[in-house]
Amino acid sequence: MARSDLVIVSNRGPLSFTRDDAGQLTPTRGGGGLVSSVGPLVQGTGATWVAAAISDDDREAMKAAGGVVEAEGYRLRALDIPPAQYRQFYDVVSNSTLWFLHHGLDDLPRRPLYDRRWREAWDGYRAVNALFADAAADEAPDGAVVLVQDYHLSLVPAMLRERRPDVRSIHFHHTPFATPTLIRALPTAEELLHGLAAADACGFHAERWRADFEACCAAVGLSPRTFVSPLAPDGDDIGSVAASSACAEAAGWVDEAVGDCQVILRVDRIELSKNIVRGFLAYELLLEERPDLRGRVVFVALVYPSRQSLPQYQAYRQEVQTVVERVNNRFSTGEWLPIVFDDHDDFPRSVAALKRYDVLLVNPVRDGLNLVAKEGPLVNECSGVVAVSREAGVWDELSSAALGLNPFDIAETADVLAAALSMPAEERGRRAAALREIAQARRPDDWLTDQLALVDP
Amino acid sequence: MARSDLVIVSNRGPLSFTRDDAGQLTPTRGGGGLVSSVGPLVQGTGATWVAAAISDDDREAMKAAGGVVEAEGYRLRALDIPPAQYRQFYDVVSNSTLWFLHHGLDDLPRRPLYDRRWREAWDGYRAVNALFADAAADEAPDGAVVLVQDYHLSLVPAMLRERRPDVRSIHFHHTPFATPTLIRALPTAEELLHGLAAADACGFHAERWRADFEACCAAVGLSPRTFVSPLAPDGDDIGSVAASSACAEAAGWVDEAVGDCQVILRVDRIELSKNIVRGFLAYELLLEERPDLRGRVVFVALVYPSRQSLPQYQAYRQEVQTVVERVNNRFSTGEWLPIVFDDHDDFPRSVAALKRYDVLLVNPVRDGLNLVAKEGPLVNECSGVVAVSREAGVWDELSSAALGLNPFDIAETADVLAAALSMPAEERGRRAAALREIAQARRPDDWLTDQLALVDP
Repeated sequence: MARSDLVIVSNRGPLSFTRDDAGQLTPTRGGGGLVSSVGPLVQGTGATWVAAAISDDDREAMKAAGGVVEAEGYRLRALDIPPAQYRQFYDVVSNSTLWFLHHGLDDLPRRPLYDRRWREAWDGYRAVNALFADAAADEAPDGAVVLVQDYHLSLVPAMLRERRPDVRSIHFHHTPFATPTLIRALPTAEELLHGLAAADACGFHAERWRADFEACCAAVGLSPRTFVSPLAPDGDDIGSVAASSACAEAAGWVDEAVGDCQVILRVDRIELSKNIVRGFLAYELLLEERPDLRGRVVFVALVYPSRQSLPQYQAYRQEVQTVVERVNNRFSTGEWLPIVFDDHDDFPRSVAALKRYDVLLVNPVRDGLNLVAKEGPLVNECSGVVAVSREAGVWDELSSAALGLNPFDIAETADVLAAALSMPAEERGRRAAALREIAQARRPDDWLTDQLALVDP
Repeated sequence: MARSDLVIVSNRGPLSFTRDDAGQLTPTRGGGGLVSSVGPLVQGTGATWVAAAISDDDREAMKAAGGVVEAEGYRLRALDIPPAQYRQFYDVVSNSTLWFLHHGLDDLPRRPLYDRRWREAWDGYRAVNALFADAAADEAPDGAVVLVQDYHLSLVPAMLRERRPDVRSIHFHHTPFATPTLIRALPTAEELLHGLAAADACGFHAERWRADFEACCAAVGLSPRTFVSPLAPDGDDIGSVAASSACAEAAGWVDEAVGDCQVILRVDRIELSKNIVRGFLAYELLLEERPDLRGRVVFVALVYPSRQSLPQYQAYRQEVQTVVERVNNRFSTGEWLPIVFDDHDDFPRSVAALKRYDVLLVNPVRDGLNLVAKEGPLVNECSGVVAVSREAGVWDELSSAALGLNPFDIAETADVLAAALSMPAEERGRRAAALREIAQARRPDDWLTDQLALVDP
């Protein structure tokens, strides 16, 4: 599909640069979930991608290239943003304020706390959004469609409309959206909502997030066009990883770790919304109440650190490690370690583990979608059960075939794990087939097609 | 007004018992905000009040009286509840679960945490609600109207309907109500909502709480009758305290503490919803940015401990004390203490301070009503300004005359305090008169009359 009229705007881009052994700056695939989902959809289409240069190497590479690099099927315009301003935009507003707000993660008696410094950070957020809007306006051909990604860039649609009233823009949130009660706390809520509502349409992964966004908008007299279009996993991509030698090698590690035990698996960033601690508490309760399961089940937790510059994430990581140590100290024997915990991000190994789970635990307190709950069934070879939080966006798609759970309720979670582990083979097989069918029901490019259908003539 | 057909049901009753010097059990007025507001409305009407016996003395007095005591114009049926079950009902479910839920005070990555013990506590909550329903069913005359108070007794309306389909019941929440997103976390949400919705009507202090309750009900297919009826302060009662010798004596303490400084006042329980720490942080910011105010303003904080059996309240009290010490250490001089902090509950002294404030700060993160924001203007003699959180129920009534603030925003709060302290006399006088008019617009018995009008033929 040739779509040179398309401009993608996101914080992270599809390419990052590192120096090879010869000291040359060479492009590699950029990190982050958004890029790995959205990237392949526009790769080779001639579309332009506007993103921030993240590392010093990125900056240098972009400077050398005059701001635009073409590589790996991407045309990337990367922005050189002053580091102090980028921190205001990224650490303070995007990740410490808006992420917490949209996920409802704040401890309201104490956080958020808006002060003068926060206001300066918001000015930085606005300024960085303007840099993105400037670049998008600059790159967009006549009649272009600009796809603005996520909570980092909430103000871009309104800024773009000012700069280029001729182009059409769509904003998509990969997160939930704040409830009307919570967004009232944000001093700049109206600016944020006007920023978003200026898009030709605003998209979400689930009906609930759309409804919350509409309710927030209605409270300030706005009624933007909205849509729901959940991302789908790329079966070909994950299938080729599953068939790779790296994955086969990692499978050896998994076999070693789990022996002939049943496997409960989670694969997550260490993130407050992911509810990792309660997942382990539920497992502890299960082992406490079901001595017969000791030595016969292993919880494999492939969870890797994230946002470690933020103190809340450092604290949460510590809490995760503490509960893992406690459960392992309490129950482990010479032959059996109840929790196999690994905090290295290793995609082939994650896929090897996804092939092998009996139960995939996906228990976020709130989550925009949670793609892994659809990736797992595509590669799993054990008729694995998916136990998923009813607060995840993906629950809307999986509810007929997965087991639902209340993420705040460790007793229910323990019961669901027990039910999953002892589920008769026939039911496991039937559910696994249904999960696979749901995961394949939407193609990865449906997400893009849905959006273009909204604005294409 | 004779209303012997009326039954009030609440956790705390209008009488508590203590031993006098001769060792005799004698009744005194019971504690708590609800009793002091609702009590006078039914005193002497012949209505029956069903409440828990709280102290050992209460239990003994009730046992001696055969379960019903008549004293001080009240007819009280007090319930002897097994202490362990009462703790499940009061500490675990009412105060650690439902209070946090309705006020949105949980730190969702960590709390709530529902486990087996919590489920047992819920069984206790249900059992205690049944004791209240039994007693109300027992006491209610033919055609009675039963007024059930607050979040402690959410299941009573449905239980009462089962036991006495002939009586009419009204449930009133003195708190906000959980948002639909938050109530989904409660494993027993449906039971709670069915419990409430069985009342002939459900009441709230503000439109927003009613809307949240209706949205929660709609999500489970319920559409109860609802109403909004904010309580009003009793001007005669508070006026007589203001004219008392105890108050005059306390005024000496206040004068001593504040000298000829301007006075910012807060009067609160030490409670996570009251936002005491951010109030002091805003004041600190004010002193930092306005050196001219140092030595010329005093923040009088009459805040007294509450629910000290709960660890969250102990922790919050410590945070409050820490910030007070820090601000006082940072700014105090030999002659001037920036914050006068007192944690003794002394009503005449609170009234003496209310007479004297230049600014009354009422900045909760969320609050069902907040009666003190209407009591202050009734007795204040300094044309005092009221600075009130837009998240308090009382904001709906006061918004035309008070200064509004975002409780999460200490910069805005500091600006509002500065504006209040420097407000021209003419504007202060005009606003104070308007506040007084609003505070008097509803009579205390309007709250009762509103409810009876809903069910009286």
